[in-house]
Amino acid sequence: MKKIDLNSDMGESFGAYKLGMDEAVIQHITSANIACGYHAGDPLVMNKTVKMAVELDVGVGAHPGYPDLVGFGRRNMDCSNDEIRCFVIYQIGALQAFCEANGTILRHVKPHGALYNTAVQNEEIVRVIAEAISEVNPRLLYVVQAGKNSVRMKQICQEVGVKPVFEVFADRAYTSEGTLLPRRLPGAVITNPEKVAERALKMIKDNEIIAEDGSVISIEFQTMCVHGDTPGAVELVRHIRQTLEIGGVTIKRMDLI
Amino acid sequence: MKKIDLNSDMGESFGAYKLGMDEAVIQHITSANIACGYHAGDPLVMNKTVKMAVELDVGVGAHPGYPDLVGFGRRNMDCSNDEIRCFVIYQIGALQAFCEANGTILRHVKPHGALYNTAVQNEEIVRVIAEAISEVNPRLLYVVQAGKNSVRMKQICQEVGVKPVFEVFADRAYTSEGTLLPRRLPGAVITNPEKVAERALKMIKDNEIIAEDGSVISIEFQTMCVHGDTPGAVELVRHIRQTLEIGGVTIKRMDLI
Amino acid sequence: MKKIDLNSDMGESFGAYKLGMDEAVIQHITSANIACGYHAGDPLVMNKTVKMAVELDVGVGAHPGYPDLVGFGRRNMDCSNDEIRCFVIYQIGALQAFCEANGTILRHVKPHGALYNTAVQNEEIVRVIAEAISEVNPRLLYVVQAGKNSVRMKQICQEVGVKPVFEVFADRAYTSEGTLLPRRLPGAVITNPEKVAERALKMIKDNEIIAEDGSVISIEFQTMCVHGDTPGAVELVRHIRQTLEIGGVTIKRMDLI
Amino acid sequence: MKKIDLNSDMGESFGAYKLGMDEAVIQHITSANIACGYHAGDPLVMNKTVKMAVELDVGVGAHPGYPDLVGFGRRNMDCSNDEIRCFVIYQIGALQAFCEANGTILRHVKPHGALYNTAVQNEEIVRVIAEAISEVNPRLLYVVQAGKNSVRMKQICQEVGVKPVFEVFADRAYTSEGTLLPRRLPGAVITNPEKVAERALKMIKDNEIIAEDGSVISIEFQTMCVHGDTPGAVELVRHIRQTLEIGGVTIKRMDLI
Repeated sequence: MKKIDLNSDMGESFGAYKLGMDEAVIQHITSANIACGYHAGDPLVMNKTVKMAVELDVGVGAHPGYPDLVGFGRRNMDCSNDEIRCFVIYQIGALQAFCEANGTILRHVKPHGALYNTAVQNEEIVRVIAEAISEVNPRLLYVVQAGKNSVRMKQICQEVGVKPVFEVFADRAYTSEGTLLPRRLPGAVITNPEKVAERALKMIKDNEIIAEDGSVISIEFQTMCVHGDTPGAVELVRHIRQTLEIGGVTIKRMDLI
Repeated sequence: MKKIDLNSDMGESFGAYKLGMDEAVIQHITSANIACGYHAGDPLVMNKTVKMAVELDVGVGAHPGYPDLVGFGRRNMDCSNDEIRCFVIYQIGALQAFCEANGTILRHVKPHGALYNTAVQNEEIVRVIAEAISEVNPRLLYVVQAGKNSVRMKQICQEVGVKPVFEVFADRAYTSEGTLLPRRLPGAVITNPEKVAERALKMIKDNEIIAEDGSVISIEFQTMCVHGDTPGAVELVRHIRQTLEIGGVTIKRMDLI
Repeated sequence: MKKIDLNSDMGESFGAYKLGMDEAVIQHITSANIACGYHAGDPLVMNKTVKMAVELDVGVGAHPGYPDLVGFGRRNMDCSNDEIRCFVIYQIGALQAFCEANGTILRHVKPHGALYNTAVQNEEIVRVIAEAISEVNPRLLYVVQAGKNSVRMKQICQEVGVKPVFEVFADRAYTSEGTLLPRRLPGAVITNPEKVAERALKMIKDNEIIAEDGSVISIEFQTMCVHGDTPGAVELVRHIRQTLEIGGVTIKRMDLI
Repeated sequence: MKKIDLNSDMGESFGAYKLGMDEAVIQHITSANIACGYHAGDPLVMNKTVKMAVELDVGVGAHPGYPDLVGFGRRNMDCSNDEIRCFVIYQIGALQAFCEANGTILRHVKPHGALYNTAVQNEEIVRVIAEAISEVNPRLLYVVQAGKNSVRMKQICQEVGVKPVFEVFADRAYTSEGTLLPRRLPGAVITNPEKVAERALKMIKDNEIIAEDGSVISIEFQTMCVHGDTPGAVELVRHIRQTLEIGGVTIKRMDLI
């Protein structure tokens, strides 16, 4: 019996600015990665999003990013390891308090944007983030990208004492090396809902990624990222979930897999 | 045997900006109110300050303020109760994570600047802050100003289920109503070290505040605020502590009183 | 022949956050109040919005607010006169540079949100803002609310040497004193497009405001504020403009009236 | 007769945070590079610093940086050319308004920290900044580092239509390639006041830089950077100026050279 967690980035609104179709998407996922006020989100939004997750029994995770609201945490910043460590600790703590205030516990940490991407390329950053997580609470799961560096990431997490959760993207093309095709290249994002849903099902059933050149990468993963920032995206999430369930996949919170 | 906690605001540096003589002052106090990145402080400073407190067995408290770095949290902002609640939860959480990362626990919460002053004037805000503290962790102590509204504040804290710690200022003049004389008025701040130290000792020994008109207000308090933002201030703190100890007062962390 | 300027707040997007239907609304107005990065807006948005205004021959104005992005400049902050003065100068300058870079000149200044509302209640703030405008460029028009304090505002502007432009709101109810009915009260915002458009036409034709109690306030004004933050609002703006033009009103940039 | 401008970074205080000995250093320089609120500085500080410069007939320049207050603009941020362009326009404009309000004109622009350093390595960024300056006001001087890329920088500025002013550092060691020795390397910063002053005089008299390996680079420059962030630095600035004057060098504002 195949199992998967569906995660989505949430709580990215800020003050008067609304972003994302959180209320709709959260109905279909099992883990919410909630922005912590650095690249997106504010305390009111964090509280509201955690509350919503609790009501729907969706797992709450921290989604820490660089302190760059105007850049939405999407661009690289040349931060020292100690800065990254402290940025991550700070943001985990802030979200953790909203978990406590809403009667739940924080379950996972998934870095956002440039911080996530930097870690994929850089073992040292993986370790720094893993250590930051472990220092706050070693029971927190660390969501990392499945693919090229899976083995190394697993080793690092074991050394640090944090449990990694590997993540795939159903709507993104992969290179034969197991990395995401950069968004600016043609075909990098798959938009056809049927195709994305079938692809998702196949990835889970076969434990593999099909790269853009047709080659196949055997891979272990426990969570799949879905996006919810457009009305169309909501429909896609709903469709992926339905396809997976019909295909015999159990959708389960990542800490229960 | 009289006991008192000495608390001081700490961790107010930010990035390249250094503020306060933390390294010197922390030698003489028992509780540190650490800024949480809203009105002052940044993650690196928070981490460093918590670490320093742990090494000296100084109690760590959160010092949440309004999100107003340029105004240093000193001016009023027209925030809703829900905003204040979420601002406080966020900041407590952020600091709590640095406590976890440094092997200690958060012990108290003392609002900063305009948020502290607003609460003194406004029961509703006292309640909102007390509730925010209690929602994150009901064992956290809530530092409030001793004086005019002590009785009401105590009631509110009891209703909410948070333990208040009452605070006095040895270097500030009080009105006969038990409020601080506004800083802009002559005589509001007492600068003579001998006078401040003697005043501190008398306040503690007699459980009372002497108002500027000579009247006496009987009052219960457990902590005394000392300042450390100038070289002279460090000397003052050292002198107060010495005077108290010679006078037979035991200096103890607020949670041990 | 009656003439009016139609102004609207623009450029309130920020980074990844989109706010307002600027591209649609700007087609129907003659003056754009562009956010300057304090309560909303960022340098890219400012540049894009000025460029768009230049292409459509819409007058560019600065829309300075309090430094409070998370509060969207809508809440009061207890700022000193000198702070308000410098905040306004800073924001005017920033927008002015985008005018220079896009081959136009800055024509007016309209304070935003809480800063606008504070000025309506407070002569001193009117003067501070007028002086800030005049210090940067005395040819800039100062948009102030028509109504209760019109006469006093006009005097102050004359004393300072800045030309005021008085503004009315067609979709807001007025008290018999000539102030806006607070938004939280029922009937404060008029949403029926026909009603708003007719009301706008009548106000302009008769130089008067009809208060909620039916009383009539004779008033001088040169510009009317329209909103563009919802799809429905765009339709409303189009409808107001059409109604005014059919009714024989000339729509003209405020500096040409 | 040799002439040189002495420039220094100023106005880097922020809110309650004081940085730099501006009041002392400004007595000895001819051009002030004033922070514009992105990496340092706030509107009150900008106003005060411009005012001080006007009183002493010191030339006012904008010192734009990355929007990174906590990093003091010292770390790289992966910004698009359009972002850099708009960040520079915004900051020039903001400072320009304080010039207008204080009865002076803006004379030069010197990028700060990582933005300055990035430009030294990257012709495209030099061009973007030059264009931003030129779009706001082509009479503004653009301060760039003298050395390795001087020739190319000059060409780019000519193409764009902006006048470059080349800058040297008396207290920094240079590589034989004409770049600054990175600060982390031993000997990168020269601290002996006598040595720095003599070196400054020799550089100006001979139009050359002596690299750390003893080789000599002939170079054209019009301004020399001096630092004022420590009490010792003030003494150093005073000493450099005196040494230059005794050595027959005329100290003059960069736009008068």
